[in-house]
Amino acid sequence: MRDFSNDHRALSINTATVRKQWKLDRIIDECARRGIAAISPWRDQVAAVGLDAVARQLRDTGITLSGYCRGGFYPAADTSGLAAALADNRRAVDEACTLQAPCLVLVVGSLPGALEGKPAYRDIGRARAEVRDGIAATLEYARGVGMPLAIEPLHPMQAAERACINTLEHALDLCDELDPARSGALGVAVDMYHVWWDPKLAAQIARAGRERLLAFHVCDWLTPTRDLLNDRGMMGDGVIDLRQARGWMEAAGYAGAAEVEIFSEHWWGQPGELVLDTCIERHRSVV
Amino acid sequence: MRDFSNDHRALSINTATVRKQWKLDRIIDECARRGIAAISPWRDQVAAVGLDAVARQLRDTGITLSGYCRGGFYPAADTSGLAAALADNRRAVDEACTLQAPCLVLVVGSLPGALEGKPAYRDIGRARAEVRDGIAATLEYARGVGMPLAIEPLHPMQAAERACINTLEHALDLCDELDPARSGALGVAVDMYHVWWDPKLAAQIARAGRERLLAFHVCDWLTPTRDLLNDRGMMGDGVIDLRQARGWMEAAGYAGAAEVEIFSEHWWGQPGELVLDTCIERHRSVV
Repeated sequence: MRDFSNDHRALSINTATVRKQWKLDRIIDECARRGIAAISPWRDQVAAVGLDAVARQLRDTGITLSGYCRGGFYPAADTSGLAAALADNRRAVDEACTLQAPCLVLVVGSLPGALEGKPAYRDIGRARAEVRDGIAATLEYARGVGMPLAIEPLHPMQAAERACINTLEHALDLCDELDPARSGALGVAVDMYHVWWDPKLAAQIARAGRERLLAFHVCDWLTPTRDLLNDRGMMGDGVIDLRQARGWMEAAGYAGAAEVEIFSEHWWGQPGELVLDTCIERHRSVV
Repeated sequence: MRDFSNDHRALSINTATVRKQWKLDRIIDECARRGIAAISPWRDQVAAVGLDAVARQLRDTGITLSGYCRGGFYPAADTSGLAAALADNRRAVDEACTLQAPCLVLVVGSLPGALEGKPAYRDIGRARAEVRDGIAATLEYARGVGMPLAIEPLHPMQAAERACINTLEHALDLCDELDPARSGALGVAVDMYHVWWDPKLAAQIARAGRERLLAFHVCDWLTPTRDLLNDRGMMGDGVIDLRQARGWMEAAGYAGAAEVEIFSEHWWGQPGELVLDTCIERHRSVV
């Protein structure tokens, strides 16, 4: 297992972590200043600065991506909605290519309209079928341009609104169905916040193996957790054993970054400099 | 599949549903008045009225139990804490016998102290081992007095504080380990709020079969869900397909009650009469 206690060359910052403090160009500058070698930006943050400008800034600073957030949200109430989701995912793949991302992360979606409190249907089995068909279609396009897709299982508490794939096992079953050759074109993003509770986690990470393990996201689960979306903890402030999990990932062949992704009203309320410095310190001491 | 559209003989009320409106003696009277045939009371509600008084009132009204809430909370920071949990579970078994409950429901517990925001340790694997040992000890005692134990998997969002068994599969694995003969002494409580999201739910209900399916709890998952504990919905107000799930339960041999268990600040703020009448109506129209 790699020793991270004295450097942060394998640290990546998911840019949602400081999205309320800074625009993306400032985030990239602040990361570069601290020797942070990788980020994972969100599409809306990229769009706010401009795709080409971000690509140029990444080249100039030498910062690479650990992933691009995000594709997915496939289910829809009707065929035009399904087609629109596919078109949007193709655009996300193209953007990921422009930014030379190692993978496009998929938050697959679930009951259409549920995010707005008005689900168009409530058959999660139908949502899962639409997700499977959507990933299959995006995969065909993404293979052609060489962009791997990483299915991110979300915590079951987000099963209605954001993702109907909620365990690593389910994500890997889908990988096996759509990419039985383990070509590297389809894999998973293991976000510990979403999967830490799973008694089958170690076994499923081992099952995934190097070809399927495309990303590793870290933060912590707080007790109590006060909000289903925006109350993630800084590594070390909660109950997840992140070092044990990194051991499982590396034993399975993963050699990429640990990407810090913290949605938190608390941390969004702190100075961005403090957040990044804390991420670096906790990456060394906890991850 | 049984037709519930014109009667509510298979309806049970978990008494937490109206715990803030009434004490247990009043709850029993209000249920009797409406022809509700079964309840599932909590230990603290029973203690507030008195165990013998409750047993007498149940006999007088003819109301039976669909379960008794609850045993469990096995993990502890030290051996005296572990022993205290076992002693408390024996008392819970005895009370369940006095009330002629068909099963004692187990909310197994997880990281000790996490409920108070101060986990004594953060190794969920250790908590799971302590839970296994605790259930084994309680099972030995419960077999002797003929009281079945029902392991209730809780939603993964409660994995740190309340239960480190979070899927039906995990609960059934434990049943197979501790009661391989499927004697009926150990089984599961299927609470749809906790397990509705699970892609393996139908398969695991079928696997459980008649001997293991000891209880069936219903309410609904709201979108959005605003609180991790006390924002459950009335059947029909959310996204869970309860009739489909009841079909799976009955196909597997379950012939017991559908027990309404709603932890909800909203419904606790309504008149108890309205809550019970709504439970009856929704049981007919939705469950």
